[in-house]
Amino acid sequence: MEEIKLDEKQALACCGSTQFAKQMAMASPFPSLDHAISAATDIWFNKVDVNGWLEAFAAHPQIGESPSSHTTSAQWSKGEQATALATATDSGLQELSNWNAQYRQKFGHVFLICAAGRSAAEILNELKNRYLNRPILELEIAAQEQMKVTESRLRKLLSAKAKADSTGSQ
Amino acid sequence: MEEIKLDEKQALACCGSTQFAKQMAMASPFPSLDHAISAATDIWFNKVDVNGWLEAFAAHPQIGESPSSHTTSAQWSKGEQATALATATDSGLQELSNWNAQYRQKFGHVFLICAAGRSAAEILNELKNRYLNRPILELEIAAQEQMKVTESRLRKLLSAKAKADSTGSQ
Repeated sequence: MEEIKLDEKQALACCGSTQFAKQMAMASPFPSLDHAISAATDIWFNKVDVNGWLEAFAAHPQIGESPSSHTTSAQWSKGEQATALATATDSGLQELSNWNAQYRQKFGHVFLICAAGRSAAEILNELKNRYLNRPILELEIAAQEQMKVTESRLRKLLSAKAKADSTGSQ
Repeated sequence: MEEIKLDEKQALACCGSTQFAKQMAMASPFPSLDHAISAATDIWFNKVDVNGWLEAFAAHPQIGESPSSHTTSAQWSKGEQATALATATDSGLQELSNWNAQYRQKFGHVFLICAAGRSAAEILNELKNRYLNRPILELEIAAQEQMKVTESRLRKLLSAKAKADSTGSQ
């Protein structure tokens, strides 16, 4: 298998922290997808500082809101929230929006959850539970959820690239 | 004993987070110094968000550097660092300054330590040890050190006030 290359812009679409993106680009190329994910995990949890975490959180649309932009990250967000949006009623979306505002008021950043495959009701339930946490704990949980999102995006991006590369070489 | 009053400006001199200062002023008056410290602890760890923590850290001068301003907070900082400054050699201060810069580069905020009674060598040693931590752990340790500083300043401020009040009422 060929080595995997990742540039800063691609890394930024997976996780919106510039510190993360720069360090991933510097660590590239990777011998395998697993190596890329392991490097991403180390950089995210051990190297990126709290300002970088907040920057990455801020790059997400509020859950239950479809992003208006056409960037790769925005398109992925749409896909990740597809189950939630398909299962939500209008009043459910309104309740989610109200709780999101309350969450942001308490914690100073968006409610972050790896939404893939989760219904709107499940997400709302998680939000209400996590709202009770103290801010430092919630910061750490949000960072763990961000890492799940990052990993899933890296898998999507890099397996698409591997496929394109192998097609190209046939 | 009379109840203890604390306004926003006084609270801000104890801990430079505006969220903290507003909530302490709202919780004032307190039936005793212990009640004031217990309210401060709850507000700081459970109510103030991570942006508020960073704001409070940013209000501190770098350790080993004498603050130039004449605010209450700056004067207290000078007092808290008196042992460190008295025990430091020129080369020790230079090493502290270099490590501080390295710390700030990694964590994105100043190195925060309750300096009262600690020598420059002890502080440098702590800095080198804590530099190895991952950012989220270091954020929590810095917040605990900030709370020690806040408690010591509240004690100073409120016992001075109690003395002034009782003198005033004689």
